[in-house]
Amino acid sequence: MEGKEILKQHIAKTASLSEEEFEHFFSHFKAESFKKGEVVINEGDDVEKEYFVLSGCLKTFFMNDNIKMHILQFTMPTWWTSDYAALYNKAKATITIDCISDAEVLSITNEAREKICRELHQVEYFFRWRTNKGYVAAQKRLLSFMNNDAKTRYEELMALYPALYNMVPKHLIAAYLGVSRETLSRLYNSSK
Amino acid sequence: MEGKEILKQHIAKTASLSEEEFEHFFSHFKAESFKKGEVVINEGDDVEKEYFVLSGCLKTFFMNDNIKMHILQFTMPTWWTSDYAALYNKAKATITIDCISDAEVLSITNEAREKICRELHQVEYFFRWRTNKGYVAAQKRLLSFMNNDAKTRYEELMALYPALYNMVPKHLIAAYLGVSRETLSRLYNSSK
Repeated sequence: MEGKEILKQHIAKTASLSEEEFEHFFSHFKAESFKKGEVVINEGDDVEKEYFVLSGCLKTFFMNDNIKMHILQFTMPTWWTSDYAALYNKAKATITIDCISDAEVLSITNEAREKICRELHQVEYFFRWRTNKGYVAAQKRLLSFMNNDAKTRYEELMALYPALYNMVPKHLIAAYLGVSRETLSRLYNSSK
Repeated sequence: MEGKEILKQHIAKTASLSEEEFEHFFSHFKAESFKKGEVVINEGDDVEKEYFVLSGCLKTFFMNDNIKMHILQFTMPTWWTSDYAALYNKAKATITIDCISDAEVLSITNEAREKICRELHQVEYFFRWRTNKGYVAAQKRLLSFMNNDAKTRYEELMALYPALYNMVPKHLIAAYLGVSRETLSRLYNSSK
């Protein structure tokens, strides 16, 4: 399926746009390709865009004292990603986003998103609910982190994206969960 | 200042509503009062409303195995709160919200918010940005938790709400930071 159609079906789950409105909406996006390992946003960068993933998998992370990698999020097809703190506040990125595999994305600038939200009420509605869902996911992840229960975090991750275990290198899944490789294997085996 | 005026000034920071539009918007809210210690949302409840705090302070928390209290959020005047996961997904509350002090709030139902967002594009814009900011705050809190740095968490909390240290009992601030009372005293003394 081409990128335009993927975005169209994604939007249609939330908002009602006419053919003409969708064409106008879509004209604000730019198709971009990244290679495996390529950096999309680097810590310290200015951040001007957010990304809708069409294919591949991205990860959002930061390094603690340049030693330990903490993974904040994996971004799969039909998910959105950026350093939103930096994007919304016009600040420097505090996290890094790179590609676990080759990836195709559609990018939109902050400015273009705000313009199209003003022009089309349904687009504003779409982005409100997109962020509402993101907020709930972030709260849920915070709750399970505070609760410090690796098993629950593992099960939540697998429920969120069942294919992940085979798509993403094990050391990255362990870094997402904040556990060792050995603990991850134990969780995997005990959940089968 | 009366509640209506507090909400009006809060909205005006983000959205442009005419006098008449604001009156219509405001008519969807209900004034509610809670006593210190009173529960606003209980774990297991159906959740139908969100709350805009006019005065007082609320806390959002959950109990780990009914023993250890984890505090997710303090909610101060001009902040919003609810169990959004439950509110948006029509699910049962997984957290509890109660009052640290007597509190005055304005409540709005899920249904009324959606209605007024459809009717007034500027209200939709307001709620989109309200959630955008909430999302960024939740991500930031998650980052500092993953980084496991109590000093940074303490400084972020004090930057967010400088008056908090004197308004909220110390054992609750410690529960928010995930540290002991002793560690909190040390952080407080070293930051003076």
